[in-house]
Amino acid sequence: MSLEERIRAGIEARKSELIGTLCRLLRQPSVSAQGLGVDECAAVLRDIMAAHGIAARVMPTAGHPVVYGEYQVPGAHTIMLLYGHYDVQPPEPYEAWVSPPFEPTIRDGRIYARGAGDNKGQLITHVLAVKLLADLGLMPKVNLKFIFEGEEESLSPSLPAFLREHAELLRADVFYAADGPRHPSGRPVVFFGVRGVVGVELVARGANRDLHSGEFGGPVPNPAWTLVELLSTMRFPDGRVTIEGFYDRVVPPTAYERELLARIPFDAEEVKRDLGITAFAGPPDLSWYEQLMFQPTLTISGMASGYTGPGVKGVLPSEAVVRLEARLVADQDPDDIFAKIARHVRRYAPEVEVRLLSRSAPSKTSPELPVSRAIVAAIGDAFGVEPVVKPVLGASAPSYLFSQTLGLPVIWATYANYDEHNHAPNENITIDSFLTGIYASALVFARVAALDPAELRVPATG
Amino acid sequence: MSLEERIRAGIEARKSELIGTLCRLLRQPSVSAQGLGVDECAAVLRDIMAAHGIAARVMPTAGHPVVYGEYQVPGAHTIMLLYGHYDVQPPEPYEAWVSPPFEPTIRDGRIYARGAGDNKGQLITHVLAVKLLADLGLMPKVNLKFIFEGEEESLSPSLPAFLREHAELLRADVFYAADGPRHPSGRPVVFFGVRGVVGVELVARGANRDLHSGEFGGPVPNPAWTLVELLSTMRFPDGRVTIEGFYDRVVPPTAYERELLARIPFDAEEVKRDLGITAFAGPPDLSWYEQLMFQPTLTISGMASGYTGPGVKGVLPSEAVVRLEARLVADQDPDDIFAKIARHVRRYAPEVEVRLLSRSAPSKTSPELPVSRAIVAAIGDAFGVEPVVKPVLGASAPSYLFSQTLGLPVIWATYANYDEHNHAPNENITIDSFLTGIYASALVFARVAALDPAELRVPATG
Repeated sequence: MSLEERIRAGIEARKSELIGTLCRLLRQPSVSAQGLGVDECAAVLRDIMAAHGIAARVMPTAGHPVVYGEYQVPGAHTIMLLYGHYDVQPPEPYEAWVSPPFEPTIRDGRIYARGAGDNKGQLITHVLAVKLLADLGLMPKVNLKFIFEGEEESLSPSLPAFLREHAELLRADVFYAADGPRHPSGRPVVFFGVRGVVGVELVARGANRDLHSGEFGGPVPNPAWTLVELLSTMRFPDGRVTIEGFYDRVVPPTAYERELLARIPFDAEEVKRDLGITAFAGPPDLSWYEQLMFQPTLTISGMASGYTGPGVKGVLPSEAVVRLEARLVADQDPDDIFAKIARHVRRYAPEVEVRLLSRSAPSKTSPELPVSRAIVAAIGDAFGVEPVVKPVLGASAPSYLFSQTLGLPVIWATYANYDEHNHAPNENITIDSFLTGIYASALVFARVAALDPAELRVPATG
Repeated sequence: MSLEERIRAGIEARKSELIGTLCRLLRQPSVSAQGLGVDECAAVLRDIMAAHGIAARVMPTAGHPVVYGEYQVPGAHTIMLLYGHYDVQPPEPYEAWVSPPFEPTIRDGRIYARGAGDNKGQLITHVLAVKLLADLGLMPKVNLKFIFEGEEESLSPSLPAFLREHAELLRADVFYAADGPRHPSGRPVVFFGVRGVVGVELVARGANRDLHSGEFGGPVPNPAWTLVELLSTMRFPDGRVTIEGFYDRVVPPTAYERELLARIPFDAEEVKRDLGITAFAGPPDLSWYEQLMFQPTLTISGMASGYTGPGVKGVLPSEAVVRLEARLVADQDPDDIFAKIARHVRRYAPEVEVRLLSRSAPSKTSPELPVSRAIVAAIGDAFGVEPVVKPVLGASAPSYLFSQTLGLPVIWATYANYDEHNHAPNENITIDSFLTGIYASALVFARVAALDPAELRVPATG
């Protein structure tokens, strides 16, 4: 049997044990935004890693802990730092879940639970692959390091300091992580960068208390109208942002990147059908991927004011809150964009408070490095189909920390099914995606270990 | 002792018993919007009325019941129909209350509880005044009827049919009610009309589920932006509404009404200080009272979309909801205004759903009728100060049902302190306001009973 056949047979033989291990991890809530069960989950993950031959420990940070692990072969070189996050998004609204978010449930070949796809069901593939390869006698003579954080869904506030403090401990040749959904066609995605993000909360205040809308509405300022009028100055109807300087430092795609973009399959009708929409939004001259990879966007991610519950409440609200998320592309700087948003608010509605909720810089690694090519090939072999290669992902992740602070090439792949419903009710991973993900991680370890060590040590591109 | 002195002494003598009866009523929740405790409250009110010499019964409607009562003297004429509502606003946000909303608590001469001012603490004064006068041998030989409804805070959906069905039972010469706060100066208010209201909910939808804002924000429609852009087409920044025809049929104040407006005291700085605002909103050429009595207004009373809870959630919301309240003046028609709002939405954002949540017509009675003058004088004597006479109140109430369906002159007074915080946390009534209210109701009964019966039977003005 070939190495590939032996790995696949090994996965098939221990299938229910592998699923059981994932379910154990999913059963433990770990909602970083709400501080729910995160420490407990770190301990569960550490125990699972230890049982899989990885020396693991829970390491404190200023926030939720990091679970750090090492697979060590005496005298060997550390090729990879494997990253993942064991924290999950808030599960609300609970009533939209078919089965409870923290009771993993198998239906129709899928495992349903908060974190099934994002990211427990993907990070655990690296851990499972190590023991699988070791048990089969196939583990290459290299070292691997693991860093699983508990704050990714809160935009990793403690990670920068942790990486600076432990830069020596985390030394490796390349950063690798599996997160996010595959392409709608089912093809895995390999990507070399992420967008940045600036999360902003705008708070407008009217009177010092909620008032009767009939007795006070009109002559007393309405903070909801204040925010509506402020927000309406921020965009053209086609989605282009009017905030001064919002598009400064946006780098347009290179010729090679345009080529990569053109090779990404995109079935517009299928995407619309899946999302239940009849038309796309945004500037009509920009393609879906150009918008998500090479353009900053401004999303309203939350609005709250007054009363929208059952029945009728005749209230003039005393406060209105809006959350905005600006997604940034290279070479934009989150602090610069926040300053521009704040300046815009000062100009159009100086009484509105602007709070910085979150920030994360964009990041890019060259897709032409030998290790980049090796990983693309391994993922393609594992899934039996050519990966979709994306220069940048629309989402944000702390890539820039690894590329900037640790100086590593940063490479990401996606193992989960397209309809994993991450950040939404009924999150899931198909059993096929999960098992193939383990196979993919095993192949990545084997192929990168086989590279010429001199080729591996290429400086990160920033 | 004069009649006035005897009534006041009687109130002083049974003060703690009177407060105890109100607290019994306040202790029973009755949130019509949430269906919380309303039936139970009707039974409590009926029992209190029965114990005060009023033949009372709970009468079903299509919604929450009416508590109907009669004080009968054989062979006497029914001069008044006394109206009030025993339902209350939702108490949310609970955490803003110093003491729980349904545990009446006395602090610094005030009774704090949801409904203390609006309207339990005012409707009960009529009931308490009847027994007081009867016990003192001062009750005039007239009949009184009482209609206390349980849906006013939900805009009285079942009242129209109830009034039509029981028009004969409810026959009287004049409609009288006590509701709302006194003027900031402490002077009671007597008013002869109310504004109408149209409550509308706008619902915008994007994808069929919440999505990851980084992976989908931009090319996938954002319903929050849809509503922001739609709302921004509805007003000028000064609050004037741009919806076509919104000001049709608005009747400007008559010369006499302008005179009444000019006589209403208004301390702009004191109002600003109390509300914690630095400037008024709305068209600068309109006074506070002209805006609230003679102009329709459009208030955003609620907004909800996405996530604004603790932490950060990177979500592209699938739905956004906004509630609007248009307050209407004579001779505007709620159905007409709703149709105009719906037409505006169809023109600017045809994909947005428009729901009619509530409707109530405006109403006016002449302040120059003999019964109008008698009641103004009685209220003035009770509070020891000239009442503020308002042609119209900014708030809405089912006045038009009594003026249109029953053909009665409709007269309202306000007994509660200005800072009763109705529709808001820490609602309260001062003990002084409450006790003086009982005195006022007793004087109103005595003075209206003393009018020439021929003068009393004046047709309502509409």
